[in-house]
Amino acid sequence: MRIEVALGSRSYPIILERGCLGRLSALADLSCKLLVVTDEGVPPSLLEGVLAQCPRAYPLILPQGEGSKSLAAFEALLTHMLEKGFSRKDKVLALGGGVMGDLAGFAAACYMRGIGFINCPTTTLAQVDSSIGGKTAVNLKGMKNLVGAFHQPILVALDPDALQTLPPRHFAAGLAEAIKAGLLGDPALFRLFEEGDIQQNLEEILARSLRVKKAIVEQDEREAGLRACLNLGHTLGHAIESAEGLGGLYHGECVALGMLPMIEDASLRQRVKAVYGRLGLPQSIRYDGEAIYRFLCHDKKAAGGFVTLVRVPALGQFRLDKVPLTDLPAIIGEGIE
Amino acid sequence: MRIEVALGSRSYPIILERGCLGRLSALADLSCKLLVVTDEGVPPSLLEGVLAQCPRAYPLILPQGEGSKSLAAFEALLTHMLEKGFSRKDKVLALGGGVMGDLAGFAAACYMRGIGFINCPTTTLAQVDSSIGGKTAVNLKGMKNLVGAFHQPILVALDPDALQTLPPRHFAAGLAEAIKAGLLGDPALFRLFEEGDIQQNLEEILARSLRVKKAIVEQDEREAGLRACLNLGHTLGHAIESAEGLGGLYHGECVALGMLPMIEDASLRQRVKAVYGRLGLPQSIRYDGEAIYRFLCHDKKAAGGFVTLVRVPALGQFRLDKVPLTDLPAIIGEGIE
Repeated sequence: MRIEVALGSRSYPIILERGCLGRLSALADLSCKLLVVTDEGVPPSLLEGVLAQCPRAYPLILPQGEGSKSLAAFEALLTHMLEKGFSRKDKVLALGGGVMGDLAGFAAACYMRGIGFINCPTTTLAQVDSSIGGKTAVNLKGMKNLVGAFHQPILVALDPDALQTLPPRHFAAGLAEAIKAGLLGDPALFRLFEEGDIQQNLEEILARSLRVKKAIVEQDEREAGLRACLNLGHTLGHAIESAEGLGGLYHGECVALGMLPMIEDASLRQRVKAVYGRLGLPQSIRYDGEAIYRFLCHDKKAAGGFVTLVRVPALGQFRLDKVPLTDLPAIIGEGIE
Repeated sequence: MRIEVALGSRSYPIILERGCLGRLSALADLSCKLLVVTDEGVPPSLLEGVLAQCPRAYPLILPQGEGSKSLAAFEALLTHMLEKGFSRKDKVLALGGGVMGDLAGFAAACYMRGIGFINCPTTTLAQVDSSIGGKTAVNLKGMKNLVGAFHQPILVALDPDALQTLPPRHFAAGLAEAIKAGLLGDPALFRLFEEGDIQQNLEEILARSLRVKKAIVEQDEREAGLRACLNLGHTLGHAIESAEGLGGLYHGECVALGMLPMIEDASLRQRVKAVYGRLGLPQSIRYDGEAIYRFLCHDKKAAGGFVTLVRVPALGQFRLDKVPLTDLPAIIGEGIE
């Protein structure tokens, strides 16, 4: 399946197809130099399969985890390209989860003020959400995505087969973003999580999630307004993720938790929790409300004493609410029930 | 004088006016937080004049010189903004030469994926050239502008009075970019350098240079083609600048030298040299041709075994030539006569 993201001169195709990582060279020109950025958690067979298709590939294998989304890793990628004599015509390819895509995409955005970027996401999280839309970034001093750029890829290759080796908890966490897409704009997608077999419906879940995101990004590429709806669950979720001592929750798990207080309809909230239960996602958490509040005040979305929250009044609907920071403690509380 | 740079949603005004740095708050909204990035070479009175207009200004005074165009300085700016709680609504202001503008602009481009940037250039080089057009960057491992972004300012405020305290050599070096503008597209601008008093004609020189650059940038914001003509003298000039042991030439002086071999008409080349003589710019140099060649092979403009050179067949005309790297040694020679 081919889904075109229509952004004028920055348009690009998403290829959603089992085995597509094995035929990348038919989807993009790989005769250039190619920096292949991946991490230790990606199965070596996937990396070898990509490298075999590019005669001038330079693999860079980074430690797994959020720690690689740093300015130090950004500099390492740039230095690697410089040392290998990369020109404006060469490209960067990310093979991995959202961390790899965000980091490699940011390096591609800035090397010589922008070179081609190919994203090959290998996690559910990256396949349903972070690999498309052009947001790239690294963290700074514990603040997520503080430094980054909008830089659209030239190709996104989604291979559902790559998900088969993911640990089950990791697989499930990423689906939180697909649940988000359903809540925001596709009730039928949400119902796929309530009924039927998720593995069997996986390709439809991926395709529907991408279409929700694509439609929003096409209308508001640089988050001037509407695109902020994609932050559903992320404002609170990022704060939970940034706060220490919360038991090493995954990004998707934090987003799942962060969405719950934003769902205004109590029965819908129960349905969402039931889906979380099916998937093994957390349904509640206790935290230090003051620590969460401090992180929210530093959020990119906070400005002028306000933060914008995305609320869901009913399935498939959303509303952007500009909320005074002073109202947050009551919303945050000491946990999510 | 107000010159609009027309780039759709990224359009902005250039204000060219004696004393305009003293009325910045009438030209832009300075009620936000403002990171004021400047260097030790900028007269304190200029900085104080800017700070007095912004109730929430955070000055950052960096060492003077190219060394501040580094990823380390980039990180320092970002960290400073994070620690002061800067949001997407806040802004960065550069007060200084091209180094400050390039560095501060790049930080503004990447902080939270892009915040407002005001450029107040205080050198001839920055006023005639680098402050407009949206190119921002830092250097990496001695390679100039290797890491950067296109990020248009929201305002450029050119105050010719700020140039009065520049050392004469510094003042003259920057005018090389104005000579470049004349050579590329404005014979009358070039003749201002051949005849009459440069100080008296300064505002006309600035305005004409800006108009040449504006017209080119408006047609090709991201250097897909035409804009490359602005690299006249820069390809060779950057290599001269990067090569060690060349007696600490200024950027503008290197550009001046780099333009000479690109001027195909011998009598025009003599006229240009005569102008250099009037201004005190260097008219010849000896160098290690091999070292220059190595830098050219790493230039951002080199790709696939070719480099694009901008050649001037006659006054006010230019041509982009794709030249095989193997032809370069003969062009470079062992110096410029």
